Amino acid sequence: MHNFFWQNKTALIFGKDTVKDLAEHLKRDGIKGVLLVFGGKGIFKCGAYAQVTEMLNKAGIKFSELNEIKPNPRVDKVREGIARVKAGGIDAILPVGGGSVFDSAKAIAAGACYDGDVWDFFSGKAKIERAYPIYGVLTVSATSSEVNCISVISNPESEIKTGIETPFLYPKVSVIDPTFQFTLPQKQTVYGGADIIAHLLERVLDGDEGSELIDEQCYSLIRTMMRVIPDLIEDPKNYDARAEYALGAAMAHSGFYSLGRRVRGDFSSHRMGHSLSMLYGVAHGASLSIVMPAWARYIYEDNPVPFARLGEAVFDIFDGTDEEKALEAIEALEDFFKDINSPTTLREVGIKEEDIEKIASNASRGETFGALKELNADDVLEIFKIAY
Amino acid sequence: MHNFFWQNKTALIFGKDTVKDLAEHLKRDGIKGVLLVFGGKGIFKCGAYAQVTEMLNKAGIKFSELNEIKPNPRVDKVREGIARVKAGGIDAILPVGGGSVFDSAKAIAAGACYDGDVWDFFSGKAKIERAYPIYGVLTVSATSSEVNCISVISNPESEIKTGIETPFLYPKVSVIDPTFQFTLPQKQTVYGGADIIAHLLERVLDGDEGSELIDEQCYSLIRTMMRVIPDLIEDPKNYDARAEYALGAAMAHSGFYSLGRRVRGDFSSHRMGHSLSMLYGVAHGASLSIVMPAWARYIYEDNPVPFARLGEAVFDIFDGTDEEKALEAIEALEDFFKDINSPTTLREVGIKEEDIEKIASNASRGETFGALKELNADDVLEIFKIAY
Repeated sequence: MHNFFWQNKTALIFGKDTVKDLAEHLKRDGIKGVLLVFGGKGIFKCGAYAQVTEMLNKAGIKFSELNEIKPNPRVDKVREGIARVKAGGIDAILPVGGGSVFDSAKAIAAGACYDGDVWDFFSGKAKIERAYPIYGVLTVSATSSEVNCISVISNPESEIKTGIETPFLYPKVSVIDPTFQFTLPQKQTVYGGADIIAHLLERVLDGDEGSELIDEQCYSLIRTMMRVIPDLIEDPKNYDARAEYALGAAMAHSGFYSLGRRVRGDFSSHRMGHSLSMLYGVAHGASLSIVMPAWARYIYEDNPVPFARLGEAVFDIFDGTDEEKALEAIEALEDFFKDINSPTTLREVGIKEEDIEKIASNASRGETFGALKELNADDVLEIFKIAY
Repeated sequence: MHNFFWQNKTALIFGKDTVKDLAEHLKRDGIKGVLLVFGGKGIFKCGAYAQVTEMLNKAGIKFSELNEIKPNPRVDKVREGIARVKAGGIDAILPVGGGSVFDSAKAIAAGACYDGDVWDFFSGKAKIERAYPIYGVLTVSATSSEVNCISVISNPESEIKTGIETPFLYPKVSVIDPTFQFTLPQKQTVYGGADIIAHLLERVLDGDEGSELIDEQCYSLIRTMMRVIPDLIEDPKNYDARAEYALGAAMAHSGFYSLGRRVRGDFSSHRMGHSLSMLYGVAHGASLSIVMPAWARYIYEDNPVPFARLGEAVFDIFDGTDEEKALEAIEALEDFFKDINSPTTLREVGIKEEDIEKIASNASRGETFGALKELNADDVLEIFKIAY
């Protein structure tokens, strides 16, 4: 096990009808005005907007709104938010939505404390040294953004979707009320589920023998998610399944499952998936269910052990050599994605064979990446060909 | 799943040679003087004392020492510490040791901010409203005191061993260097292991259908601990096993496995075990390996389901009725405790049959308690008879 430092700074309020509980935290911290950040109509439909504004009004906290945050959120919208905060009257950022809204809120929170352009943080030109406090209300579970210190933003000018991670970006308090997710389109539950499972796979498949304990906790959560997602497809208003999905989503990329690892995880599938989202607007979870099995098929023969362990622990595959178990595990994973109707090929999301080179080059950007296997530009191209 | 609020305020520094990393936290927080709290010779033998005092000296932080904290720590020693802090020159408490040392440090940290007697917090007469910051170095893993906000103290006058829990008592920073535990007597690893497993069992056996996800994580950690403890008996200097033991110990009673439960867990075995420690000085973990199987045997017929689930998830017991699986699981648990040489009967720790009534009455104190089954004085007596 590698040495680590661990502190998750986010306080989590979890459960039914809990938005009102946020008021005491805002008041205790002396917040008088917030920037309410959200996406589209979802938060009106599920009741979150009504509950949040009622809570703010009762607490005497002023708010102004920044809406129309899109999936794979873009830096121009973040800049708009920063300008609003810099104009004054705002003490905190209050995202109400899913990962894109939280990620945007984080970038706004940091960018509003900085004189230069916010993209400097993402390009590595500048380092975050402070940020406005963030108090969030989650309405779509998937990314763990509600309890981690990561923000992933897309820049259409440079065609790069990339992330930053710094302790300044932990939300101070996050509210997860699973009932807000009763009204989500099934696709969002499915793609969110693929994302959650991918976050866990990025860790147990990184080739790092960091901590068997953490790997075992990880396998257990993958099993739980594979049990819960079909339950939600059958009945989207099953509260216990929604709550387990939401809690599992929060845990999966909170940092907990990286404890004792040399690196946070592999995350090359995430990087390749980001290119699909950046260039073709593919939903983040869908990009992962496409890329991850292709990545696995491309590298498992040289690195069968982590796939074989996954097979044993998650799919009860005990017979055969490590190579055989590994392949069977990859097939089982693909079958799972197919069963829940998450795409596993580029074709299914309308991408053409002639686009593959462009996607691969966007993902590699002349760099090598990956933990279990370091991937160069040729590897990435081969993986996208398999994914086709 | 029940609603919950979750915030673990402790920052964890984990790994080899990490005591030195505590300095930057102490300096950042402006700490100029600390009360160094410890037990016996263990921290000299393992090197923790030398590393901590070197770190303090280099950082220019003054320290005075309060030593001879005993297992099942007593309130008189806590009072001594409080007097020392009130005498001045101390900004923080720095426990170096195991759960008893951390628990004492917490009681000192709170008591030194209070005009009355510290036992008022434990008797329910007063409520903790502030505490000195705690920065700790763990040398014996078992209780999770290094990452939770619980303090359990014994009062010889009233013959009560009891605990308090308040967010003010989270250590600000805890260091876990597993190498300090290389030199522990085997008994401490064994009893610590029994305590860790008991913390997890108190949760999955509480009869609460709070969260299957959390139960599954809990079962996974029980399996991990049952794998790791025998490894450490065989080779006490196996670093990875020590690290997994230490991390598992920290997690087990950190509060994480209580998320979504109606109550924190059952904890009636802990309460009954506390009486054995209070009256006969039985090691905490040993008291649990004695009481828990007896408690289980007494109640499983009326409540077979959680024991049957435990059998499936931890001991691979899949055949038979729930009652049969439950009994088999209890036997497997007892066998595990026997295999690692943790006592499972009162006789083994020298307690006589005629003492049973006194112990039972100390545990019940005219109250009923327990979550899976509420236990009255007669139930408690019967359980101690089974444990005999």
